[in-house]
Amino acid sequence: MDYGTWVRGELAQLSKSLGFRYTPLEDLEGRLNKLKTGMNRKGMEGILLVEKMDRYYLSGTTQDGYLFVPLDGRPILLIKRELERAKVESALEDVIGLRSMRELPSLIQEHRGRLPRTLGLELNVLPVRDYFRFQDIFSGAKLLDASGLIRDVRKIKSPFEIELMRVAGEIGKRAYHEGARILREGMSEIEFAGLLEAAAKSYGHEGLLRVSALNYEAYSWHLLSGPAGGIVSQTDSPMGGLGLSPAFPVGASLRPMKAHEPILVDFGTCYQGYQADETRMFSIGQMKKKFIDAYRACVKIHDAVLDQTRPGADCETLFMNTLKLAEKLGYRESYLGPPGLQTRFIGHGIGLELNELPFLAKGQSYPLEEGMTFALEPKIVFPGEGSVGIENTVVVTKDGFDVLTPLEQKIFEV
Amino acid sequence: MDYGTWVRGELAQLSKSLGFRYTPLEDLEGRLNKLKTGMNRKGMEGILLVEKMDRYYLSGTTQDGYLFVPLDGRPILLIKRELERAKVESALEDVIGLRSMRELPSLIQEHRGRLPRTLGLELNVLPVRDYFRFQDIFSGAKLLDASGLIRDVRKIKSPFEIELMRVAGEIGKRAYHEGARILREGMSEIEFAGLLEAAAKSYGHEGLLRVSALNYEAYSWHLLSGPAGGIVSQTDSPMGGLGLSPAFPVGASLRPMKAHEPILVDFGTCYQGYQADETRMFSIGQMKKKFIDAYRACVKIHDAVLDQTRPGADCETLFMNTLKLAEKLGYRESYLGPPGLQTRFIGHGIGLELNELPFLAKGQSYPLEEGMTFALEPKIVFPGEGSVGIENTVVVTKDGFDVLTPLEQKIFEV
Repeated sequence: MDYGTWVRGELAQLSKSLGFRYTPLEDLEGRLNKLKTGMNRKGMEGILLVEKMDRYYLSGTTQDGYLFVPLDGRPILLIKRELERAKVESALEDVIGLRSMRELPSLIQEHRGRLPRTLGLELNVLPVRDYFRFQDIFSGAKLLDASGLIRDVRKIKSPFEIELMRVAGEIGKRAYHEGARILREGMSEIEFAGLLEAAAKSYGHEGLLRVSALNYEAYSWHLLSGPAGGIVSQTDSPMGGLGLSPAFPVGASLRPMKAHEPILVDFGTCYQGYQADETRMFSIGQMKKKFIDAYRACVKIHDAVLDQTRPGADCETLFMNTLKLAEKLGYRESYLGPPGLQTRFIGHGIGLELNELPFLAKGQSYPLEEGMTFALEPKIVFPGEGSVGIENTVVVTKDGFDVLTPLEQKIFEV
Repeated sequence: MDYGTWVRGELAQLSKSLGFRYTPLEDLEGRLNKLKTGMNRKGMEGILLVEKMDRYYLSGTTQDGYLFVPLDGRPILLIKRELERAKVESALEDVIGLRSMRELPSLIQEHRGRLPRTLGLELNVLPVRDYFRFQDIFSGAKLLDASGLIRDVRKIKSPFEIELMRVAGEIGKRAYHEGARILREGMSEIEFAGLLEAAAKSYGHEGLLRVSALNYEAYSWHLLSGPAGGIVSQTDSPMGGLGLSPAFPVGASLRPMKAHEPILVDFGTCYQGYQADETRMFSIGQMKKKFIDAYRACVKIHDAVLDQTRPGADCETLFMNTLKLAEKLGYRESYLGPPGLQTRFIGHGIGLELNELPFLAKGQSYPLEEGMTFALEPKIVFPGEGSVGIENTVVVTKDGFDVLTPLEQKIFEV
């Protein structure tokens, strides 16, 4: 059978029957229009999108290629390899094949009648070598940074996106419940984490979590027990964990878990590209009172932030208020990391990537807006002993918030 | 307890007891000396390394920061966050703290007495925005591309590296054996893949696979059954698979596996950062003769390449010879992908990343050298029906090759 015919027929059917969700055209158009408003303001006649998640957000497909968005006229999706599948996945009208990046100007000229004199690129992630190639290929255009504009559009989620994040949250809930059934003394952290992940995958979790930054690797198995919970590592988070080697010194390790120690399970899930992030404490038998008390303090801080969560609340203020509360509760030295290594955020925007806007953090003074989604994660760290915390993913609503991670807020003691 | 004291004492002990392997100083020095030979040739007075795996390769740690390699004198490892742990992990002498990238010139000046007038950067991966910052911070230096030099050093593996890849291969073997025990009709691809992965992790597999390229995401669960094996997707490989959604349209899917269909398991494992990649066919009951025949053709092609594998063999020729052999065996139309979408490589270098040198591919005319490692993967694709293949990771030895993936070369029929 001809491959294209098969893709448009049987493959499209199979994908649908297995639950593939395609971004509706209205969603794509809404996003593109917002982006164009920004482009107009910045004097950008076109944007050429390279990064996979930016392209997915604005085209509905991650097939390899480029998305050209002109200030005037329809976008053009240019696909390098799997053109037929891109046509099935993307609701955009103009999906065309591309043999090499050298063809970009002539194809844009042919389909839109002119080349942009100012061209936006994602300078936050685009490698320098590609930038030099674009300078050469689009020699008549002034190249500008479009990453801020794109981030700004992506920060507000549509009902379609929020629904997918809600499903990710449901997948997480089922996985945690399975975790409570399988946790046993003596299991290694990574064995437990692997089984949690396998369960989540069988419910539709995509396995990969995503962040948009060189060197920053996201992963599901941030599962830390006892003293391994008190270890900082490469990423900017309260605790990194031991990990498996100096090549990957974060997350779960081969350490066997013991009774009565805190087991922090910070497990992200991903459905149709959309992520939910949550943390719960597990223990085999009861944890020491010190950890239970610290966990309760985290819950208080978590709830206090949510009490203030609504459109207009200032993100930096939300964070700074938690410092005061942590101090009042007696955790000034251990809140968000060991002394001297404490992080400066309590929440991160989440959606297709784990580092979206907003950040509830020092230096991030801007208001929450309706439709923003973030993961809120107060944590307390005792070096050499362990750490505790709680985390939920929420969406800012018209007059407050809604929780997207419906898992019970309790210690899972087995 | 003071965090630093704890890291240098108990954490170092715990890491060692759980099998952390630290890169020996002699390995680091050998690599640095080779790099300096290249720098001297290119007139590069210094290189500033940013990418995580490049830094790991030359310093032994992945803690966040920069590695400055001067042409003359010792390298300086500058750590942003986990300085204490970096000191435990890296055998380098000069490991110092860094508050912000703005401090780089003054710290280099202070520790090495001068700033480089020509500075190499990894322009293949460095984001443009960071490049502009470096232009500003190192305003007296000419910035050059160092990525080719680094790739060139990394392409030859030391006995230490080969040993770690061998362990990764052993982990893979155990995981495949576990796979043969758990595969059942009706399991979804992703459920099976998740359990394989959980098993491998409990044996020390790190979970993440790595490639060095924007947008290219590696993953362990490239497990494709029946018609899902005949689907191309975003990556440049013979078959991509269905995946779970348009956001991740590659690898295992929620499709339930059926009896008698080909189940291609292309499962990479990672130990201490070092990867092994292999593919075997599974089936529930016997596969149709068409697939068994095509599998045997893949084995013939695989063995024919290994017959020619030795220092001096030309990588492009090795690939081109397989095209002739595939045609002779009757698979011209289905070798390495569906017609029109066939890939142009039969092997990829492997180590810390899945896209290292050498490539046994069209346009890659250079000789194999002793100590190179590559994954060899002939595959045959029938659109709408399925695909078959075999893959092993090998190292080029003085007079031939050695296989690093010791798993039996057979169809795993359950």
